[in-house]
Amino acid sequence: MSKEFIYVQHVQFGDCDPARIVWFPNFFRWIDASSRHFFAECGVPPWHETERTTGMLGTPLVDTHARFVKTASYPDVLHIHTSIAEWRTKSFVQRHRVMRPASGDLIMECDEVRIFAARRSEDPKSIYAVPIPQDIRRLCE
Amino acid sequence: MSKEFIYVQHVQFGDCDPARIVWFPNFFRWIDASSRHFFAECGVPPWHETERTTGMLGTPLVDTHARFVKTASYPDVLHIHTSIAEWRTKSFVQRHRVMRPASGDLIMECDEVRIFAARRSEDPKSIYAVPIPQDIRRLCE
Amino acid sequence: MSKEFIYVQHVQFGDCDPARIVWFPNFFRWIDASSRHFFAECGVPPWHETERTTGMLGTPLVDTHARFVKTASYPDVLHIHTSIAEWRTKSFVQRHRVMRPASGDLIMECDEVRIFAARRSEDPKSIYAVPIPQDIRRLCE
Amino acid sequence: MSKEFIYVQHVQFGDCDPARIVWFPNFFRWIDASSRHFFAECGVPPWHETERTTGMLGTPLVDTHARFVKTASYPDVLHIHTSIAEWRTKSFVQRHRVMRPASGDLIMECDEVRIFAARRSEDPKSIYAVPIPQDIRRLCE
Repeated sequence: MSKEFIYVQHVQFGDCDPARIVWFPNFFRWIDASSRHFFAECGVPPWHETERTTGMLGTPLVDTHARFVKTASYPDVLHIHTSIAEWRTKSFVQRHRVMRPASGDLIMECDEVRIFAARRSEDPKSIYAVPIPQDIRRLCE
Repeated sequence: MSKEFIYVQHVQFGDCDPARIVWFPNFFRWIDASSRHFFAECGVPPWHETERTTGMLGTPLVDTHARFVKTASYPDVLHIHTSIAEWRTKSFVQRHRVMRPASGDLIMECDEVRIFAARRSEDPKSIYAVPIPQDIRRLCE
Repeated sequence: MSKEFIYVQHVQFGDCDPARIVWFPNFFRWIDASSRHFFAECGVPPWHETERTTGMLGTPLVDTHARFVKTASYPDVLHIHTSIAEWRTKSFVQRHRVMRPASGDLIMECDEVRIFAARRSEDPKSIYAVPIPQDIRRLCE
Repeated sequence: MSKEFIYVQHVQFGDCDPARIVWFPNFFRWIDASSRHFFAECGVPPWHETERTTGMLGTPLVDTHARFVKTASYPDVLHIHTSIAEWRTKSFVQRHRVMRPASGDLIMECDEVRIFAARRSEDPKSIYAVPIPQDIRRLCE
């Protein structure tokens, strides 16, 4: 079981396009913010700290799958419900459901596959997926 | 068979994040531009014209699935290869492959499900999927 | 005298560039949001309503002057203090001071010249500056 | 006298807002790209190279003043004419004029005050303005 946290996003005028709805790339900006917000709320130290202490430098995205259900627009207030849907050996699935609480509508949902990454000591420009850190997993459950 | 067109994107400094790589939501900005560029290159009239003549107002996105293979950074030049991978009854799959020709690398790839949309005459705020317009399909093949 | 309202902005990871500071165009995104937030907090109806009732459709920007004092970064929380610094005959100066309350620092400040705009009835694509609506001015003072 | 280079920007659908015109923060994204493009075209090495060789790490923005003259929209092609309007002791004024060549219109213009910055050796997080590097100035004239 995973914790779930809600990230609140106020849609702004400039987030919308000439069709008067949120231009879809903006959802991915907000989902990335919600991904980070989730770990912070779980009590995971920020990645610049874990990089110093354990070498783990963040959770790069390797795959994302989004389904757009209803449109949103300025000045909607959106709630992004974020949790971990699945832990794999070297990756995990973070699930984001973007809701508009005023109408009860699901706006879009997105499953992201992310890894925990560290730098190769022999080539600091190269990163690789480390096994799921068990202390971080425990904080998220 | 579908035509394929290439949309060229110069990665800018501000497209990159503190990890010094392209922040992933920017790929979706570029893919949306490449989606429109594809139809323009095929000779499809702009949507504000088709809206006047046939009621068809664009190709909203209903589903997107992206896989991130390698990172890109400023000042990379990227080529987005865009084609139609599949025509369904009321939707189509537009495929985008983002390449870095200088290295021959595939950076990311993305399959988008889009519909051709028109407005309901009884409620202009509501849109619905129309059958694939055959004249547009022919221009793309 | 003008009212002053504070718009709160959490800096996100993706708002920062490879120099690890906020990429400056993002400040203008937030300032535009704070400009709209100011009028909403003053009780001014949204522009899509005023367009129907009085023809006034918004406050386009005609001039902006910004001074960058200190850098900001993820995960700073910023407060944008927004007020009207001056009312002219057909324009007004909206002032934004972006503060980081945790350190007491002024991050940047910006004076915007905006107009109240309406559409020409003889050419709906063309807009012009109307005299300052006195009812809106009273709500802001 | 300064060289002048033109940076070409194709306005995309998603760069426009519900008023169907370019949302103004996007102009600052493009102007920052044109600022970098100018130095590259002048033959100035990229900042990550100058940082290694001379300690100079870029040209942070300290002040910007923009005037918006006409609106632009998708699918306009814009030309940003960029030059150095003034060299001061420890800063310079970079001038950007955004034109729409199809109509001959000036869309907006912007004067930016930028500095050449280096890191303090005693505190690598702190930067300061260095005197204008004369070799770079010669390349730009």
